[in-house]
Amino acid sequence: MTYCVGLLLKAGMVLLADTRTNAGLDNIATYRKLFTFEVPGERVLAIMTAGNLSVTQTTLARLTEAAQHPEADETRSILKAPTLLNVAGIVGDTLAEVTVELQGRMERMSSQQASASLILAGQRKGGPMRMFLIYPEGNFIEATEDTPFLQIGEHKYGKPILDRVVTMDTTLAEAKKAVLLSMDSTLRSNLSVGMPLDMAVIEADALRVTERERIEAKDERFAELSTAWSQALRDAFQRIGWS
Amino acid sequence: MTYCVGLLLKAGMVLLADTRTNAGLDNIATYRKLFTFEVPGERVLAIMTAGNLSVTQTTLARLTEAAQHPEADETRSILKAPTLLNVAGIVGDTLAEVTVELQGRMERMSSQQASASLILAGQRKGGPMRMFLIYPEGNFIEATEDTPFLQIGEHKYGKPILDRVVTMDTTLAEAKKAVLLSMDSTLRSNLSVGMPLDMAVIEADALRVTERERIEAKDERFAELSTAWSQALRDAFQRIGWS
Repeated sequence: MTYCVGLLLKAGMVLLADTRTNAGLDNIATYRKLFTFEVPGERVLAIMTAGNLSVTQTTLARLTEAAQHPEADETRSILKAPTLLNVAGIVGDTLAEVTVELQGRMERMSSQQASASLILAGQRKGGPMRMFLIYPEGNFIEATEDTPFLQIGEHKYGKPILDRVVTMDTTLAEAKKAVLLSMDSTLRSNLSVGMPLDMAVIEADALRVTERERIEAKDERFAELSTAWSQALRDAFQRIGWS
Repeated sequence: MTYCVGLLLKAGMVLLADTRTNAGLDNIATYRKLFTFEVPGERVLAIMTAGNLSVTQTTLARLTEAAQHPEADETRSILKAPTLLNVAGIVGDTLAEVTVELQGRMERMSSQQASASLILAGQRKGGPMRMFLIYPEGNFIEATEDTPFLQIGEHKYGKPILDRVVTMDTTLAEAKKAVLLSMDSTLRSNLSVGMPLDMAVIEADALRVTERERIEAKDERFAELSTAWSQALRDAFQRIGWS
């Protein structure tokens, strides 16, 4: 599995992804699941991936190839599409196309299923920040003021903390803490989600990735955050009463 | 869905179940999912249920009928079986038998699946407290010192808090708080789990249900606990740092 979470706030967007992939419990590897695309000052995009690795890699490869193609036009290039909605359409179409191809192959050969879902976040010059969750079939939903976060993969363990602390007005510093604690709860409860983590921050109207960080398994600050949170939870648990 | 959780502690056992059942989002009802059986001074048993309501009701009805039958013997009656392991065997066999019957029916008539899982907790005179999670096929696992809690139904949202605060040495007062907070996180994040709640406490060696409580949707103590916990989480979140 995987856990990726994205927050869409007034101050900007914060994205966090784990890097564990597995084909069975005895075949574990580290693969990046957070990808960014920039035309500084013009457009910034980030894509996070969950699901079958051959689907997500092929989808990303085709999107990248289409964007780099010398004759790429606005109907195929995520860097040229006029709006973020158009970008979501291109990403969704590519994902659905790859999924159908690979599922056809897999159904012929074995009973395995292959699917994937994505989070797309971005902003183009003159437009608002937008964030989409794109389903295997290529359709998508969008983060809104009422629900300013999107999750893919193993999303349940880390949802209670987000439900409680995240609003559109959350600052970027708090948002980083929130996604890291949401990830920490998931890491503790589910072996199929693993370090290192990739975090990206895109400040509102910066039109570039303003902060990018890989947090390794031995990262002391993350260990401290995790310990402090556990201790704080236990203290709070002791303090509140039920009789 | 459903959320039921049971803790097996040195001091006793604490069980909590929600009461929501649904057949689609537009057909919601309240059904008890926590059942207790007592022969005071001799034996106490509790069963919590998750899954298809016709399976769980039929299973409970057969177990009850078998136990009340004037000629019930120790191979069929959960009140007479010599050990808790034998009780788990009877419950598992009954569940598997009902599941096979109903699935046969359902497969003939529609493509629906029907299955259920149970938590069984109990103690007999002279024996230790034991707690089992019984799967639809009738096989089971048991709570141990390393993992002193079992969950069925929508278990992920409420697991992080249990992972952090529950050990075999947790007191019964703390244990009640822990299961209520675990339920609170689940209620907030998942509509298919709903109030009222049923809680039961079985103190070690009491051989009876020592405390039984239905917590209604309008219960003020539960609302206060929930609010206090949210506030404590937000305060803790503010206090700890990440830079």
